Amino acid sequence: MRVLGVDPGLRNMGWGVIESRGSHLRHIANGTCKTDAKDTLAARLLSLHAQLTDVIAAYEPDTAAVEQTFVNKDGAATLKLGQARGVALLVPAQAGLAIGEYSPNAIKKTVVGVGHADKGQVQAMVRVQLPGVTFDSPDAADALAIAICHSFHAQSSGRLEAAMRAAQ
Amino acid sequence: MRVLGVDPGLRNMGWGVIESRGSHLRHIANGTCKTDAKDTLAARLLSLHAQLTDVIAAYEPDTAAVEQTFVNKDGAATLKLGQARGVALLVPAQAGLAIGEYSPNAIKKTVVGVGHADKGQVQAMVRVQLPGVTFDSPDAADALAIAICHSFHAQSSGRLEAAMRAAQ
Repeated sequence: MRVLGVDPGLRNMGWGVIESRGSHLRHIANGTCKTDAKDTLAARLLSLHAQLTDVIAAYEPDTAAVEQTFVNKDGAATLKLGQARGVALLVPAQAGLAIGEYSPNAIKKTVVGVGHADKGQVQAMVRVQLPGVTFDSPDAADALAIAICHSFHAQSSGRLEAAMRAAQ
Repeated sequence: MRVLGVDPGLRNMGWGVIESRGSHLRHIANGTCKTDAKDTLAARLLSLHAQLTDVIAAYEPDTAAVEQTFVNKDGAATLKLGQARGVALLVPAQAGLAIGEYSPNAIKKTVVGVGHADKGQVQAMVRVQLPGVTFDSPDAADALAIAICHSFHAQSSGRLEAAMRAAQ
């Protein structure tokens, strides 16, 4: 199963693609969709849409996961992030992919084992899971963590479904 | 000049199309893109994208305007609105349209004459500007007000550009 993880952001949108077979994970690619703060908001969203569409065309993931954004106290920042996140959800939906959503704490808990892990701990565990990986950016590292989290949960729910079918 | 106005929202996204010739405005159409709260967020954004794309294909506007969203104190609501607004900006950008953005107060000031007008006053003035119009929804009425505001400002800047060219 090939999994795309996306860490949404208007200026830098991290993405990472991994392949999972059973408990074995393999790094495929990671990168960062960037936009220019001098452009109009509509032009930046258009650019993010085009860049993320290219990523899906190039790496053909089977499923996708997008980080559930922190709602912070700064309404203007939340709105900006929301607009970018709308595009991050739209693009895989347009490609017909099922999309998982995970909170930052759920991602940390799955990848590191604790919900309050810092960025350094998350990146260290991503490196353990995907030997030899180099990160295009901190956002791309986050996106790989999201992909790892999704592949773990997708497998768990797959096993659960298989167990339920077997029990029937 | 044919103008599309959009009042962004995740559940109900109002749209309105008008035609402006000089100071004369004419109503073309208005409606509401709706999504089902029971669907996933990604499915709702996908549906809004498809519905708004159909509106642009059907009415072929020359330019578009999207309301600048109020940043309220409820972060979760702001994030939801942001995600819908991302789609509202993306679709006309994908169609190659220039997009204006206006705050609710700027729209009220242009359409009614005062920035603190209530919804009833705005709808009454939209009816005066577009005789015989019936509103598909309150959001569609707001979208027509946004289109009126944009056509006024586009004309003003057009006149300004013409005057500047004449003065050179």
